[in-house]
Amino acid sequence: MSTHHRDALETLDREDPLAPFRPRFRLPSGVIYLDGNSLGALPTATPERLRRVIEEEWGEALIRSWNDHDWIGLPITVGDKIGRLLGAHPGEVVAADSTSVNLFKVVAAALELRPDRRIVLSEEGNFPTDLYMLQGLQRLLGDRFTLRTAPRREVVAALDDDTAVLCLSHVSYRTGEILDLATVTAAAREAGAVTVWDLAHSAGVLPLDLPAAGVPLAVGCGYKYLNGGPGAPAFLYAARDLHDRLHQPLSGWLGHARPFAFSAEYAPAPGIARFRCGTPPILSLAALEVGVDLLLEADPGQIRDKSRRLGDLFLALVAERCARWDFTIACPTDSARRGSQICLRHPDGHAIVQALIERGVIGDFRAPDILRFGFAPLYVRYVDIWDAVEHLRQIMETRSWDRPDLAHRGAVT
Amino acid sequence: MSTHHRDALETLDREDPLAPFRPRFRLPSGVIYLDGNSLGALPTATPERLRRVIEEEWGEALIRSWNDHDWIGLPITVGDKIGRLLGAHPGEVVAADSTSVNLFKVVAAALELRPDRRIVLSEEGNFPTDLYMLQGLQRLLGDRFTLRTAPRREVVAALDDDTAVLCLSHVSYRTGEILDLATVTAAAREAGAVTVWDLAHSAGVLPLDLPAAGVPLAVGCGYKYLNGGPGAPAFLYAARDLHDRLHQPLSGWLGHARPFAFSAEYAPAPGIARFRCGTPPILSLAALEVGVDLLLEADPGQIRDKSRRLGDLFLALVAERCARWDFTIACPTDSARRGSQICLRHPDGHAIVQALIERGVIGDFRAPDILRFGFAPLYVRYVDIWDAVEHLRQIMETRSWDRPDLAHRGAVT
Repeated sequence: MSTHHRDALETLDREDPLAPFRPRFRLPSGVIYLDGNSLGALPTATPERLRRVIEEEWGEALIRSWNDHDWIGLPITVGDKIGRLLGAHPGEVVAADSTSVNLFKVVAAALELRPDRRIVLSEEGNFPTDLYMLQGLQRLLGDRFTLRTAPRREVVAALDDDTAVLCLSHVSYRTGEILDLATVTAAAREAGAVTVWDLAHSAGVLPLDLPAAGVPLAVGCGYKYLNGGPGAPAFLYAARDLHDRLHQPLSGWLGHARPFAFSAEYAPAPGIARFRCGTPPILSLAALEVGVDLLLEADPGQIRDKSRRLGDLFLALVAERCARWDFTIACPTDSARRGSQICLRHPDGHAIVQALIERGVIGDFRAPDILRFGFAPLYVRYVDIWDAVEHLRQIMETRSWDRPDLAHRGAVT
Repeated sequence: MSTHHRDALETLDREDPLAPFRPRFRLPSGVIYLDGNSLGALPTATPERLRRVIEEEWGEALIRSWNDHDWIGLPITVGDKIGRLLGAHPGEVVAADSTSVNLFKVVAAALELRPDRRIVLSEEGNFPTDLYMLQGLQRLLGDRFTLRTAPRREVVAALDDDTAVLCLSHVSYRTGEILDLATVTAAAREAGAVTVWDLAHSAGVLPLDLPAAGVPLAVGCGYKYLNGGPGAPAFLYAARDLHDRLHQPLSGWLGHARPFAFSAEYAPAPGIARFRCGTPPILSLAALEVGVDLLLEADPGQIRDKSRRLGDLFLALVAERCARWDFTIACPTDSARRGSQICLRHPDGHAIVQALIERGVIGDFRAPDILRFGFAPLYVRYVDIWDAVEHLRQIMETRSWDRPDLAHRGAVT
């Protein structure tokens, strides 16, 4: 494709098989939203679904909705739907709690599978909450294990016969780099370690088949590409052949085999339900279900194809139009190895991101110097990429980012 | 008051200083809702608040709302509002996660305060998830502590010099019995133990002053008397003088001192924020805030006074009108020692509760034989009590509960 002509991109957008999805999101006018990897956009169906849950299910049916509207089953229902995005079998995924809390559950459970091993291995620069949760578990368990980190590309080489658990992000939040699920999981299995994957930046945007990749355990996020809304419940995947051997420590009543028997002794539910803990947040779960339902209508191959093309286009346009300035590419240039994001480095990255946001081009900044642009293929168009890079060019040309009032604002991944 | 005349109760309702609150809840017609201790009713302001959060904050402002609408501060903002219901100082309460997860956090933190002690003491028949979470922590920590339970009234006597943590429900979910916060906490402190209170059935319906009672740690529920909606986020209280010494194991990124510095090492935030973990569920938190705001408009003394009178009225009417049948009273008859619920036992309790629900009188059943009726003073009227007991009388009179189709339905506390 020619990257020079916006017209050609308009044609691509018209011919895009995913084009019918864009009107199914409510996108603010004047905004180019390249941050769906941080907070997915609002599906148009969500407000009405929430209205119904609030006014009818809660307001009218009240407590009876736990049964009559199957609120009690929602973590499993929504989990199974997310499972389809992961290639999982029914009964392998639950929607619950936060990614952080779910990571704690699965790593603790995984440790029990390797009682004689004393290393939990992760990557340097993994998403902070993953490292923090591992540190919290380590501190709690005293000398049960040591947390070791290695650079992302050396982590497989760092596996040894004392590695109990390998905990990695499938797609790096900082660089967008994809690790190969099957290869890494197999290497860990070969070394006798249990792999826990964080799929926060892959679920909903990469075609996944966790069973085929031999993945034992994974967690992920509901508010990024799943479009579940701010702080949406997270998910947890556990391969079904492991369920009976997995014991997670946050053994709340809804993970009990018979939660309403109110017995004094905990007995884990069969299957994935044992990874539930407390009462599920129904409003947030309902919103998550809408986002997932929408994704399930789309073809994962088309999503991936468009995602790669959007990223390639962004890089090509930056090369053409912004070569004069100090940008370096911080993500793989090969789209096969790249998630749905482009990362650039620039010493003034933070101020530049703020200047873009002022112009309605919403990406985000990751310390120390990364400008991150995410592409949610259901609602980002090719022309959006053209326009975003043009804004970037103008900002650099005019040095309009060089303003002290843009220097100190934050954002949340 | 005469319990015989419904007219007199209508007069009481007209004169009730809390009467203006009832129209601020959306209550279904034909329903007498005596289950606000399980799921609080829907405040009329909630749908519009959620519409705004969803359509404007999420839909229009997108990721910017973390700053621009202070989503990031919501767990503390809402926590401080809940704190006012607990008599807490600002900065002593956070709204986050579930009651179960919060209990895990505070008990683990409390254990660290008593490294040489090896007993966690709780009550027999405590709310199951509390016991299950303690069992999960115990299993995770191997021989760090033994979980011991004693009958509720003997639990203080069971304290000894090996008790690290005492974990109790302030109001029993099964019997409604209140334990005296200050007395029990002082006895535990005297014995060198740290008390963790579960306030699920007291917050929002009993006047509380946790600092005056010397309470070090507490958790509680957002979806009962706080009217936060199904599965609303829970809360966690920690006395401010302890904050620096408390380390909770679910050390997610939002509990970090500088969450957006993305550093590799966890460093707990100063104050209550260290009890945060993952990204907060904004939709559910916003709904919770509406419920709490409404409660804050009411006088806690008036809430307590009406709550006691509603319970006394219920018991008096049952004594008058249902004496012929096999009901026994399973709650304190002295309203000073009773939370905002009445519990009756009957061998056919489950079917009777179902028959009541069929008539629109919604209470709930707790195994093995308890009929439980909760009174949320902001929306339950005196005439509702009269009508509820009249329905109960009619059901018993006609044995209309004695139907096999009513035997097997569940509900969620």
